[in-house]
Amino acid sequence: MEKVYNFCAGPAMIPAEVLSKVQDELVNWNGLGTSVMEISHRSQDFIAVAEQSEKDLRELLSIPDNYHVLFCHGGARGQFAAVPMNLLGDSDTADYMDGGYWAHSAVEEAKKYCAPNVVDITCERDGKKAIIPASEWSLSDDAAYVHFCPNETIDGIEIRDLPQTDKPIVADMSSTILSREIDISKYGVIYAGAQKNIGPAGLTVVIVRDDLLGKAKQILPSILDYSVLVDKESMFNTPPTFAWYLAGEVFKWLKSIGGVAEMQQRNEAKAKVLYDFIDSSDFYRNEVHSDNRSLMNVPFQLKNPELDALFLEQAKAAGLVALKGHRAVGGMRASIYNAMPIEGVQALVNFMAAFEQQHA
Amino acid sequence: MEKVYNFCAGPAMIPAEVLSKVQDELVNWNGLGTSVMEISHRSQDFIAVAEQSEKDLRELLSIPDNYHVLFCHGGARGQFAAVPMNLLGDSDTADYMDGGYWAHSAVEEAKKYCAPNVVDITCERDGKKAIIPASEWSLSDDAAYVHFCPNETIDGIEIRDLPQTDKPIVADMSSTILSREIDISKYGVIYAGAQKNIGPAGLTVVIVRDDLLGKAKQILPSILDYSVLVDKESMFNTPPTFAWYLAGEVFKWLKSIGGVAEMQQRNEAKAKVLYDFIDSSDFYRNEVHSDNRSLMNVPFQLKNPELDALFLEQAKAAGLVALKGHRAVGGMRASIYNAMPIEGVQALVNFMAAFEQQHA
Repeated sequence: MEKVYNFCAGPAMIPAEVLSKVQDELVNWNGLGTSVMEISHRSQDFIAVAEQSEKDLRELLSIPDNYHVLFCHGGARGQFAAVPMNLLGDSDTADYMDGGYWAHSAVEEAKKYCAPNVVDITCERDGKKAIIPASEWSLSDDAAYVHFCPNETIDGIEIRDLPQTDKPIVADMSSTILSREIDISKYGVIYAGAQKNIGPAGLTVVIVRDDLLGKAKQILPSILDYSVLVDKESMFNTPPTFAWYLAGEVFKWLKSIGGVAEMQQRNEAKAKVLYDFIDSSDFYRNEVHSDNRSLMNVPFQLKNPELDALFLEQAKAAGLVALKGHRAVGGMRASIYNAMPIEGVQALVNFMAAFEQQHA
Repeated sequence: MEKVYNFCAGPAMIPAEVLSKVQDELVNWNGLGTSVMEISHRSQDFIAVAEQSEKDLRELLSIPDNYHVLFCHGGARGQFAAVPMNLLGDSDTADYMDGGYWAHSAVEEAKKYCAPNVVDITCERDGKKAIIPASEWSLSDDAAYVHFCPNETIDGIEIRDLPQTDKPIVADMSSTILSREIDISKYGVIYAGAQKNIGPAGLTVVIVRDDLLGKAKQILPSILDYSVLVDKESMFNTPPTFAWYLAGEVFKWLKSIGGVAEMQQRNEAKAKVLYDFIDSSDFYRNEVHSDNRSLMNVPFQLKNPELDALFLEQAKAAGLVALKGHRAVGGMRASIYNAMPIEGVQALVNFMAAFEQQHA
């Protein structure tokens, strides 16, 4: 198949223009006669990539000067350990808001390092899955920080509000970063695995407020130590250079289309097309309350689950791939990250309508 | 410049045939209409990549069945922390043989978790840098394991012998793996950052003997926990899929040329051309005793260091790039990893001879 629309939840689509440029220059980058993945991370050429990518990300997210930007190894799950080991200081607890699979996975790792105060923030509203408003979250007095995951990829749940607290707010933004405007100054630490809206898997972006450095536990592996990474400008060890370069190309692309504000508008438009269609149909349904529907991941069920396999098979034949839902919730899931054009969502809706007509 | 010979110490050259194939299929891999970096690590297509790459690596290195192969995040420096946290068990010491910059860096990280017994194994032999024979290394009785680095990239030192011990031998093989034949059964753990002989930076290969699992400290981040990675088949979190795929292509290439035995012959031939030329010249010199000269990294000095800059400039103009030595030793360094063809070494020697003739 020559070209498909790829709804994979991650590793997800890379913008087509970016991938095409990367292909063109893969064996001879910058006129050097080598691939970008074959040069030293300490070379002038790569340092220019590193600096430009940080500059572009700072511009895209309006990152204040008192925040550091780190490009790390280890994925978001690495940060599940790094966050408590970097931020707990003398405290032995932190608030963990549990809104789904990923927030809960962070809890499990945090338990190695502290006694987390775990708060179930899920609820039912109008018969749909929803999240308790952040103003009502039960925070503890002695927590070192408040951790949450603003987008649960499996359930298709998004949290847009923040609690009122003077504690640092820490957010796993793997599926949120760059998808909509965020006020970075409200957070202590933001981290994100790259494989949704940034670039290839294996790279992790961390944005950390200056005053939170210097509290790392002695047992923290240096590759996860924010102070070390700040000090060494993310080059304590050889970084995943190719993924970093590709992330930089994604940032340039995002700037070229108008930045995060424009991206948010496009993402809202894409999500609206799909949710509106699902809501207008008796054949498909989405279980999430409109307050908390994710812009990025749209799970949906067929009224008759016996048709799931046929749906997936015919969708694939129509060039609409990776629509199978996570095993925890079943059904389908359309992940419509930044790189998914609205034409892809329209093609999906057209297919869904035709499938419904055939099988309703 | 269209094509150069790239002597970078890492991230290093990728075999030209591999890079060309990767470029061809970058936007449409396996006929899926997507890039390999855009598909789920849990998809059948990627699992086939993961399985084949492990199978090929096992075949290339004759890895016995009682060893696990892991594809990890974090680089070799991640393993500097992972090794003590996985292997110390109840012991509070391990033997660290210090033969150079990288072995020493492993010591610094190990100090977070134990009181390492650090043994300086460097010596001078016939006025050259050398390493004390492994049979004479001072091992301690209560060490949980013996750690060493068989190839020091900065000094251009290689260690080919092993100590007699019933303790697990742990080796940082970042610059050794796949370059020459190794008897895996003599080791407890072998680890290697990918960016020398395997693939792009950001991937780490770990080979661990079965009986060493299950001793991990509770504080070990799960992404570095060998038992977790074994249990989840290196997919506890999203692995660096593109780097893994590319490593698999490098393994296929290595098999296609005849495997590690053939590669070792080629590497020995390449190194001989370069060392023989250096030894025949009064204009260049290498400081390492022939007992311990690295097959992979050949540092050399010009008699007159004032010519260094000119040498580098003219070499670059001749398509011979990344020859600058590490700042710790100065001069030049030619890294001639697996992907460097003998034609590249010959071109370097020809250039060196011409430069000598011009400036001697």
